[in-house]
Amino acid sequence: MSKRKPVILVTNDDGITSKGIAALVLVAKRYGKVVVVAPDSPQSGMGHAITIGKPLRLKKSMVFKDIEAYECSGTPVDCVKLAVDKVIGGKPDICLSGVNHGSNSSINIIYSGTMSAAMEAAIEGIPAVGFSYLDYAADADFALCKKVVADVLKKMFKGKLPMEALYNVNIPKISIKEYKGLKVCRQANAKWQENFLERKDPMGHTYFWLTGKFKNSDKKKDTDEYALKNKFASVVPVQFDLTNYELLESIKL
Amino acid sequence: MSKRKPVILVTNDDGITSKGIAALVLVAKRYGKVVVVAPDSPQSGMGHAITIGKPLRLKKSMVFKDIEAYECSGTPVDCVKLAVDKVIGGKPDICLSGVNHGSNSSINIIYSGTMSAAMEAAIEGIPAVGFSYLDYAADADFALCKKVVADVLKKMFKGKLPMEALYNVNIPKISIKEYKGLKVCRQANAKWQENFLERKDPMGHTYFWLTGKFKNSDKKKDTDEYALKNKFASVVPVQFDLTNYELLESIKL
Repeated sequence: MSKRKPVILVTNDDGITSKGIAALVLVAKRYGKVVVVAPDSPQSGMGHAITIGKPLRLKKSMVFKDIEAYECSGTPVDCVKLAVDKVIGGKPDICLSGVNHGSNSSINIIYSGTMSAAMEAAIEGIPAVGFSYLDYAADADFALCKKVVADVLKKMFKGKLPMEALYNVNIPKISIKEYKGLKVCRQANAKWQENFLERKDPMGHTYFWLTGKFKNSDKKKDTDEYALKNKFASVVPVQFDLTNYELLESIKL
Repeated sequence: MSKRKPVILVTNDDGITSKGIAALVLVAKRYGKVVVVAPDSPQSGMGHAITIGKPLRLKKSMVFKDIEAYECSGTPVDCVKLAVDKVIGGKPDICLSGVNHGSNSSINIIYSGTMSAAMEAAIEGIPAVGFSYLDYAADADFALCKKVVADVLKKMFKGKLPMEALYNVNIPKISIKEYKGLKVCRQANAKWQENFLERKDPMGHTYFWLTGKFKNSDKKKDTDEYALKNKFASVVPVQFDLTNYELLESIKL
């Protein structure tokens, strides 16, 4: 890496005013020149959605002191695309997404706007990390998160975690004193069991709220769920080739 | 499988009135009892988005003759969740998504509502297939698609394509006469090169339209892009464990 300051693109899915992105920016700016392009409204659960049928807006943001920042009307993935093509005008050295208010461990990665933003960067060939905190509260305490972000960035810049990669980092809801460090692991094979709440509107029409219970039947010790339960921050290296090679090899048409 | 007719859940991301879903229903009903739960409006590019911040509506639909069908206000993934929890009240025997108007080969799978609906079913343990046609036109001719859907279903019901799986099937824009058959393959390592169009609104504010060029630098012969160029329908077995195991093995913290 050259001596110039690395350019660090920061985005998220909870929106530019969330506490989690403020924590991420605070740590990231110690490691390089931070540029923020984040949604102007919450985008949780957007997965890898992109905006096709309507145009996108990008507005200079005053949310962060001394940091170049933009609010975007689109999804987290739109933010990364716009940042590369219109704001930075090329690839940043690294893209950090989050810190998300709520878990993106295990199957949650599939629904996650936080991780999709990071994945979009990775597809562009940009080293990328998504950070998520197992505390949904808007006013959650991000002290441990800041430590974990710094730990991950240090390990990446030193090459202990390969730079040319995509990582899904989840942070347990514990105190800094209890925290045991980073644990590299795989995505647990868990899922949500849906349970829609049924309601009636004032006109008597039915509507539904999506709710559910997280079910983890994967009890092995090499998973992100195990790491989080045992007070580690989980670090899952992630890929975007979704081919099931094992099945592919076995099929003879 | 028991002698009762298999229950086939059909959904899509272009919306319940699209020509592609009509083609899919037409073929599917030869193989079992079809239940349709599809978005009430186009949802292209929604990826694996789910609806969290607002409630969902489900309305009996009269679009298909003699077929139980519902229009849903949510995303393709919402449709599958609602179908299992509220419409069918359990797992269908198979879930078919599409036929999408436009390609979901290669990296397009990541942005695809069609494939996310199928993936959501697979996460629930339901055999699932997403079908996409390399013709974006609303009035495209779906004759070849119907043949491909029938080919895939026959192979699945006969066990030549394992049932307990998720497949991404793409269909080339060629005539039935030119069609060479199904080809099981992997996701090509291709990507989109973004190019946002910049416009001004009547108030003088800038807005952007997402456009781009598809770039395939993966020239090997075992990819979906190769199959499609060579007049096969591509069949990629898909997984939702996104762990990069190769990288995982190599990291020592």
